[in-house]
Amino acid sequence: MRRAVVLLSGGLDSAVTLFLAKKKGYRCECLIFDYGQRHLREIKAAGDIAHTARCSFKILKIDLPWRGSSLLDKGTKLPSSVRVSECQSVREIPSTYVPARNIIFLSFALSYAESIRAEAIFIGAHTQDYSGYPDCRPEFYRAYDKVIACGTRAGVEKKPIKVETPLINKNKAQIIRLGRRLDVPFELTWSCYRGGRRQCGRCESCYYRAKGFREAGILDPQKRL
Amino acid sequence: MRRAVVLLSGGLDSAVTLFLAKKKGYRCECLIFDYGQRHLREIKAAGDIAHTARCSFKILKIDLPWRGSSLLDKGTKLPSSVRVSECQSVREIPSTYVPARNIIFLSFALSYAESIRAEAIFIGAHTQDYSGYPDCRPEFYRAYDKVIACGTRAGVEKKPIKVETPLINKNKAQIIRLGRRLDVPFELTWSCYRGGRRQCGRCESCYYRAKGFREAGILDPQKRL
Repeated sequence: MRRAVVLLSGGLDSAVTLFLAKKKGYRCECLIFDYGQRHLREIKAAGDIAHTARCSFKILKIDLPWRGSSLLDKGTKLPSSVRVSECQSVREIPSTYVPARNIIFLSFALSYAESIRAEAIFIGAHTQDYSGYPDCRPEFYRAYDKVIACGTRAGVEKKPIKVETPLINKNKAQIIRLGRRLDVPFELTWSCYRGGRRQCGRCESCYYRAKGFREAGILDPQKRL
Repeated sequence: MRRAVVLLSGGLDSAVTLFLAKKKGYRCECLIFDYGQRHLREIKAAGDIAHTARCSFKILKIDLPWRGSSLLDKGTKLPSSVRVSECQSVREIPSTYVPARNIIFLSFALSYAESIRAEAIFIGAHTQDYSGYPDCRPEFYRAYDKVIACGTRAGVEKKPIKVETPLINKNKAQIIRLGRRLDVPFELTWSCYRGGRRQCGRCESCYYRAKGFREAGILDPQKRL
């Protein structure tokens, strides 16, 4: 059976990606990161999603002892949804950008994939909503493929590990519709950047989640909880 | 003052790289990794080298809870120097290759460099001796430059962080001669892959160190200790 490493955040994009990778016939091994994010609640969500998908998972603790993101620095204000729409119009990088975060996540996934001889790494990045994040763009993933081809045993042996980004050109509503077809347990997913007991509904991530469910014409099961 | 992040292992290549970066006028911030390597002794060596160079340093603990390298798996035999020369002739990747290790190290260095607005990352990789390691080849570093250009805030803002590999085409003897000119404290460096109190003199890394000092016509100060 083909194996894949799936990067799981606890949000709905990565949950849909996991169920899609399973549907494609991969035996999936999930990686979840504890990198000091404000919203540690998402780690529990990620574990619950992997468990529901009957996939094994590992939680890796990552030390990023430097500042530079409102997602890590509790003293910094998170952007509100109003600020989000402003950002998007000028293609500005949001303050929630964590320096090289996806690059770090991919690197661990790559090490794990090499060690278990997996063929693919799945990541739920997409450009439509978070167009301000440089590490969510297709050109970044194609450049990363080159790194794998040149810098790993798998690449040298001509069995490079492919980074799969099946959601890259989809918007949130399309992702939600796809997730529904795949029976993704949306009620388990956690999108909010704040660390509260309930999702705040005001941060950048909650804004896109609500907009996505609204445009997909589907009721967010989290609203019922 | 221009800033650089320097990857420091405790071995002599990275020590020479640090002193070279200082000579080029960079204010250097060192990153040292504790990744479960057999030779934890090198972490102390790296700290001593940074201290002697009057540079600040951070030790990051990295969790690699998977197998796949004789450098991590204590149950696996390390290759001897005889095996090393066999490997080299057939360009085989040594068992000490840690899946995606340099890719992970670079990713953290990149995150740190972005956060402190450093201009460069210095790494002491070179092809001459460790030609079997895919992540020590120039084409890998050029591919990584592309990842930085496409996948980071620094790249998007047209101030990409450059990965500097000043030793890439030098052999060990040339590196040692260069280090002597730069007053690198070779007596503090640690090359041995085994975790003993003294360097074993038999592993792959000790083999290249001894060969390098011999060819450079310089006495290894570690021999006197």
